[in-house]
Amino acid sequence: MRIVDVREQAISLRSEIRNAAISFAEMDTSAVALITDVIRDGKPVVGFGFNSNGRYSASGILQRRLIPRLLAAEPVDLLDDAGTNFEPRRIWDALLANEKPGGHGERPVAVGAIDMAVFDLVAKIAEQPLYRYLADRYGDGQPDADVFVYAAGGYYYPDEDLGRLVAEMSGYLESGYTVVKMKIGGAPLSADLRRIEAVLEVVGAGSKLAVDANGRFDLETALAYAAALEPYDLFWYEEAGDPLDFELQARLADAYGPPLATGENLFSHQDLRNLLRYGGLRPDRDVVQVDPALSYGLVEYLRILDVLSAAGWSARRCIPHGGHQFALHIAAGLKLGGNESYPGVFSPIGGFSDEVPVETGRVRPSEAPGIGIEEKRELYAVFCELLGAQR
Amino acid sequence: MRIVDVREQAISLRSEIRNAAISFAEMDTSAVALITDVIRDGKPVVGFGFNSNGRYSASGILQRRLIPRLLAAEPVDLLDDAGTNFEPRRIWDALLANEKPGGHGERPVAVGAIDMAVFDLVAKIAEQPLYRYLADRYGDGQPDADVFVYAAGGYYYPDEDLGRLVAEMSGYLESGYTVVKMKIGGAPLSADLRRIEAVLEVVGAGSKLAVDANGRFDLETALAYAAALEPYDLFWYEEAGDPLDFELQARLADAYGPPLATGENLFSHQDLRNLLRYGGLRPDRDVVQVDPALSYGLVEYLRILDVLSAAGWSARRCIPHGGHQFALHIAAGLKLGGNESYPGVFSPIGGFSDEVPVETGRVRPSEAPGIGIEEKRELYAVFCELLGAQR
Repeated sequence: MRIVDVREQAISLRSEIRNAAISFAEMDTSAVALITDVIRDGKPVVGFGFNSNGRYSASGILQRRLIPRLLAAEPVDLLDDAGTNFEPRRIWDALLANEKPGGHGERPVAVGAIDMAVFDLVAKIAEQPLYRYLADRYGDGQPDADVFVYAAGGYYYPDEDLGRLVAEMSGYLESGYTVVKMKIGGAPLSADLRRIEAVLEVVGAGSKLAVDANGRFDLETALAYAAALEPYDLFWYEEAGDPLDFELQARLADAYGPPLATGENLFSHQDLRNLLRYGGLRPDRDVVQVDPALSYGLVEYLRILDVLSAAGWSARRCIPHGGHQFALHIAAGLKLGGNESYPGVFSPIGGFSDEVPVETGRVRPSEAPGIGIEEKRELYAVFCELLGAQR
Repeated sequence: MRIVDVREQAISLRSEIRNAAISFAEMDTSAVALITDVIRDGKPVVGFGFNSNGRYSASGILQRRLIPRLLAAEPVDLLDDAGTNFEPRRIWDALLANEKPGGHGERPVAVGAIDMAVFDLVAKIAEQPLYRYLADRYGDGQPDADVFVYAAGGYYYPDEDLGRLVAEMSGYLESGYTVVKMKIGGAPLSADLRRIEAVLEVVGAGSKLAVDANGRFDLETALAYAAALEPYDLFWYEEAGDPLDFELQARLADAYGPPLATGENLFSHQDLRNLLRYGGLRPDRDVVQVDPALSYGLVEYLRILDVLSAAGWSARRCIPHGGHQFALHIAAGLKLGGNESYPGVFSPIGGFSDEVPVETGRVRPSEAPGIGIEEKRELYAVFCELLGAQR
């Protein structure tokens, strides 16, 4: 049993949106296919992965460092003790050989893409949907049948107007979402408050609206927004300051009563540990958003769950960034609190299986073996192209 | 005045050494050349840069993101107000357009290579050696004439024996170094103590020997080494634990009296700020080793110096990692405490101008315009090849 080939290609996620920090006009991600000599239904089993959105493709590191290391490893060193499947932790160690500690930025993204494909692969070989495989292997064997998802949108479109924003949010509610999220911080506070009040008119209550500043506020601005937002009692106030400014986060937690959320730009268990040590987050209400596909994959995310657990946190306080099928399976299999969703953006990676509706704010993971990328037509087409004649 | 072309190529730093964390057998770095339409001595001015050692080349990010952004920028947006030279901070902003905050790992390495070439360029256009340019522009106008350097070696060679280690260290003393550094943590404590005692025999005093664990110790091991090392009163004990484990660093500072050093695997002013906030470092004795070429370049390193200054630290407590000419100029121009040196390794980037000797542990930066890469024969040959027919 061995990995016979690894293919990688950057795919565009080009979209005309921007948050408080960046435009997504040039955004892309790396699609990775792990091709094995394991045969199921007469065909080789292939694992598919990509590195979420927001951090660009990682082709350079994948092609120059990680993929060569994976192909150079002794096949037996990548297997579990029984030799009946690949062992994700051993593959992870092979990928990270000769990498210095620290510097969790681009490298976790590259590892995340391969790690997603590894878990797609091992679940396919085990002939299980990933969420069941994860519940059996790392959880309590009793996965959640469906997962809370919220609709993340409300970006600053180039021709921003309140009518368009309100229509977008109404559309999410009509599609079955119960909680929506919008961007703040890309306009002055007074304009953002007008946007928030317009959205509250349609969603009906602060508990159905989250806001996201994408890490752009200094302490003074973060606290000014906190004071203005507190009366709305929002679902959460996300990433007010720089992701590494744990003191700002702690000061904010002192000053602001309702839930805070952060973590999509922390990419390692060491960074998450610092957030818990110094960021003042409150385990009874705050939310951790680390995205497994951006953060060295699920092998590292399991360590992150360990760090949380050791600090007295429930996995239910985790709602990953990214809006992809991989995190949806992880949420169901390991009983997280939910998952992000980006209706209509970040095509082709955004969203879940094509035919599965959102019902009362919840969605079911695919029952196909692995992640179920084959049930997402447009994304599967990308991987078929990557595989070329081999499929 | 504009940048007409940018060339980048990965160059091998292959060497048969290893530290406690990694082997350097596959190590490489990105060489970058910024070609302008500015003419000096009848030829276009070209800036040269590379991203130090230890973090691999960054070709993917450079070729796919940073270089296209630089070439797409309006030329006038990259110049100073007078239009007589390039403005490094404006180039830096162009490089980082549409990048999310956080995730300081691979991206700072890529920016660092370009930033080095930018400073080579602006000093050449100003017709000054970089250290004088920096002293005039960012310092007090009175640069240091020479810089303390220490010899970093003592790696675990494949055929490690004490005789070879002692001979290596004696060689550094004979070449003019007064302080040497050796690796620890790649062998059991008892074996490392035998290595340290053998080296102390030739260097004569603990104050002439630094040791470097490369971030591999857990708290218990870090403290065990601290207790064993304390009686030697070493020059410093470097990077005991994971670079992001600030609590370990603080516990170590509580337990260990002599100087500690760390920071070569922190790549942003945010990370350095966390180290100062939470790491327990002592401004009267400890040493900060952030490497400008790995950390978004000198534009970011100036912010790091600001963070240090605001926390009551002298720039004299900074002795950058990397052993390259860029950090040597920064050390002289901004009056840091010194610079690392790697005699005989990391060819072709390691070391300073070919003809300049180390005298009583100090070395003078090049007087050529810019960094003086032209005075380092083997390295200059790499850049000439990169430029091809254009020189």
